[in-house]
Amino acid sequence: MEQKLDRLKALLTEVVDLRTAQAVLGWDQETLMPPGGALGRGYQLGTLAKIAHAKFTSDEVGQLLEDLGPLGKQFPPDSDEACLIKITLREYLKLKRVPSEYVEENTRVTSNAYSVWEKAKASSDFSMFRPELEKVVALRRQYASFFQPYVHVYDPLLDDFEPGLKTAEVKDIFNVLRPQQVALLHAIAGKPVPESKFLTASYPESTQIEFGKEVITRFGFDWQRGREDLTVHPFTTGFNTGDVRITTRVDSQRLEMAIFGTMHEAGHGMYEQGIDPTLNRTPLASGASMAIHESQSRLWENLVGRSRPFWVYFYPRLQQLFPSQLENISLDTFYRGINRVEPSLIRVNADEATYNLHIMLRLELEIALMEGSLAVKDLPSAWNSRVKEYLGLTPPDDANGVLQDVHWSQGYFGYFSTYALGNLVSAQIWEALSADIPDLEKDISQGEFRPILTWLREKIHRHGAKFEPQDLIRKVTGTGITPEPYMRYLTAKYSEIYHL
Amino acid sequence: MEQKLDRLKALLTEVVDLRTAQAVLGWDQETLMPPGGALGRGYQLGTLAKIAHAKFTSDEVGQLLEDLGPLGKQFPPDSDEACLIKITLREYLKLKRVPSEYVEENTRVTSNAYSVWEKAKASSDFSMFRPELEKVVALRRQYASFFQPYVHVYDPLLDDFEPGLKTAEVKDIFNVLRPQQVALLHAIAGKPVPESKFLTASYPESTQIEFGKEVITRFGFDWQRGREDLTVHPFTTGFNTGDVRITTRVDSQRLEMAIFGTMHEAGHGMYEQGIDPTLNRTPLASGASMAIHESQSRLWENLVGRSRPFWVYFYPRLQQLFPSQLENISLDTFYRGINRVEPSLIRVNADEATYNLHIMLRLELEIALMEGSLAVKDLPSAWNSRVKEYLGLTPPDDANGVLQDVHWSQGYFGYFSTYALGNLVSAQIWEALSADIPDLEKDISQGEFRPILTWLREKIHRHGAKFEPQDLIRKVTGTGITPEPYMRYLTAKYSEIYHL
Repeated sequence: MEQKLDRLKALLTEVVDLRTAQAVLGWDQETLMPPGGALGRGYQLGTLAKIAHAKFTSDEVGQLLEDLGPLGKQFPPDSDEACLIKITLREYLKLKRVPSEYVEENTRVTSNAYSVWEKAKASSDFSMFRPELEKVVALRRQYASFFQPYVHVYDPLLDDFEPGLKTAEVKDIFNVLRPQQVALLHAIAGKPVPESKFLTASYPESTQIEFGKEVITRFGFDWQRGREDLTVHPFTTGFNTGDVRITTRVDSQRLEMAIFGTMHEAGHGMYEQGIDPTLNRTPLASGASMAIHESQSRLWENLVGRSRPFWVYFYPRLQQLFPSQLENISLDTFYRGINRVEPSLIRVNADEATYNLHIMLRLELEIALMEGSLAVKDLPSAWNSRVKEYLGLTPPDDANGVLQDVHWSQGYFGYFSTYALGNLVSAQIWEALSADIPDLEKDISQGEFRPILTWLREKIHRHGAKFEPQDLIRKVTGTGITPEPYMRYLTAKYSEIYHL
Repeated sequence: MEQKLDRLKALLTEVVDLRTAQAVLGWDQETLMPPGGALGRGYQLGTLAKIAHAKFTSDEVGQLLEDLGPLGKQFPPDSDEACLIKITLREYLKLKRVPSEYVEENTRVTSNAYSVWEKAKASSDFSMFRPELEKVVALRRQYASFFQPYVHVYDPLLDDFEPGLKTAEVKDIFNVLRPQQVALLHAIAGKPVPESKFLTASYPESTQIEFGKEVITRFGFDWQRGREDLTVHPFTTGFNTGDVRITTRVDSQRLEMAIFGTMHEAGHGMYEQGIDPTLNRTPLASGASMAIHESQSRLWENLVGRSRPFWVYFYPRLQQLFPSQLENISLDTFYRGINRVEPSLIRVNADEATYNLHIMLRLELEIALMEGSLAVKDLPSAWNSRVKEYLGLTPPDDANGVLQDVHWSQGYFGYFSTYALGNLVSAQIWEALSADIPDLEKDISQGEFRPILTWLREKIHRHGAKFEPQDLIRKVTGTGITPEPYMRYLTAKYSEIYHL
């Protein structure tokens, strides 16, 4: 068995190396590649993906997994070996169900849908995007069909982003969450909006970047094993625990974007940096799921970065860097300003009180599209009526409505809910962490973040993708995903700020 | 046959895509990768190389080449098809002769030799490097043995860098060149050295970079299909004709390094950008050889960049950028300063009159090591006596002598001579180009470089690696590699500067 396991590991290192090469080429494409490189890069990524897929789904890998499956139970269930066999088998069986002709067609259709979406968004014309989206939706339904029998047609899609989680579970969670979020929003709506004009003064870009780097260095982002670059759409990619890249964006007229965006991506980055290095070159050397990943970014961005203790420590430094812009703004005014609640049309600009509502409406529409109860042609009106219902707003056009997100054009159905789940999990983790670190607020107000990172490393990061996300959350917090801690957090925070 | 050719092309696109991915990962490693990425990057590059090698040397590729070989003669000899079959077969047959165990051992030994060389150079201690170099030399001799029968043991090594060129040919060329270079140097040695102190003032780095970019933009380097970054050791890498990356280095105390280094790398870069895009994703989408590549970099760096007409155009701009440093330096003083001749110990700092002598001594030592007439232990003294003979200097230590170059530690025996051959070829090309462009000097003095680039594109660049380098040189200049044009160029230039 030892020999078979070694052989499996050897075959998987090749797959991981190829996937890592794809990640490096993808990172380069987003950050630095000159425009002329686009066509060739598409070919290179296609070839790497094809070879990695062929190697992963080879008969030899299949046979080894079959042989090791029952034998693997001899390892302790939490051991690297047992987890490797289990998680690899899970992915292998999923990949084997999808015919390669489907993968090729899906790549072609989504690649085209993406460029059409870009143009449709630019001219705010959903009708241009509609035929492409219809093809994408049909392909996603076909994808689900490869995984029959399922309880719900949306289950296989969700499983790609959140392994093991079922549609019914997400619905249950959101059904509890929705009325509470709406009630909180209504309570806040009656109160005066905190001052925030000072956040949109002129803030030199290089100083914003400098401040962001100071903050995440203090958090514990390791520059010997990472770097930061500028992109239009910020993201994080980890090639292994020794090389994790984050990107950020800066607006010289808006202070918030770079600061909170940088903390967000550093949260993702520190997760990848914290995985046990012994898992490198295995499929376990990544985050456990999108929701767990998002819980880490949100924890640093919001639970830490939008907290009062954080700014007790960092606000004097920020004032020092931007004296003319902030010298007359008190810490309290600043804190209330960055935590103001304003229902808005665009998800990525949403505050903590409204963000999840943006997600819920998307999830409902995705599910309806997959079930067939909503036709693509009726999507804009369904979108707009839900925006009105949840946020009290009316999109002036499709660019500020149904066309705002890239995800559907790329076939990413099942992705959105992980953003909201990540928010919920971040608060669950925060409650567990607060129980273990008695002086948490004091530490933060003194710029001492090591206890937090150490705790996250021990409880979450080091395990990589060893455990299914629901198991990991249960290990760490004692329950599955649940909305109560997040609502407790929001209610406490906004009660204080808005005197609810 | 059509079908077989299509199949061969399809298989080769995969190989090229994999090699391109290696190139991207290599570029990233040299320019941006954080230190922690090193170990993983080594694995990724190793995996990509192994898969590319296996795919290129597969039985199917071999069979297709065998079938297409005779049939390929139906294509016109200069057609893309005939060249693809010929050049691919050539590389295939070479790769098949080298056992994979040898490749693995060679990679391991040179990887270790490289790190030992770094330490040995830092402490200027050849005895530390000696055992590693002995292993490398033994492996290089073994490599040559795979290609028996050969006329000279050095032939197979040279062939890796300069396909088709024989040791006897290089010896013949250098035997003619050497006494002429030495005689020129002696003639110059009796004359006063031009003033050059002004080149080592304080020159802000960002302004140097700005000037370099202005120059190469004017040359025709295409930023839509390329970029420039900073590295300790400048290099150029082309992923395809749409994405060519150059790097440069800047010394805030020395003006020459960045200016001429940038022009040099842009010369390499414009070659890669100028290859016919229809050759992309084939093994023909690269330069024809190291010497041809170096001829392009040297042509722009020296024939253009160190010429008087070039500075007639660009010196006013340089003075504008560095007013306090250069306002009292005349164009003539500047021109003579950047063309001063000073025998020095370090190859990469050598001027045009002495550079080739650095190469010749290395070639002689390489050949002697391969023939077995020189033992590694006697290398330092052999080195020092040749430096004395050719340059009139005595290295104070090994770091400034036999340990200065990285090449041998990496097993690059056969590489050095292409630097000198590139110099010779640059002057051959320049004579041919001058005959076709009557107003060449006037064009240059007006900042008009399009006629040069257009000529190079038509005669050289677009062909990529379709032709063996000696054939290409003959097509372009009417002869094989010959030293006379280069000596004519040097003699004319230095006669004017030094009043010889």
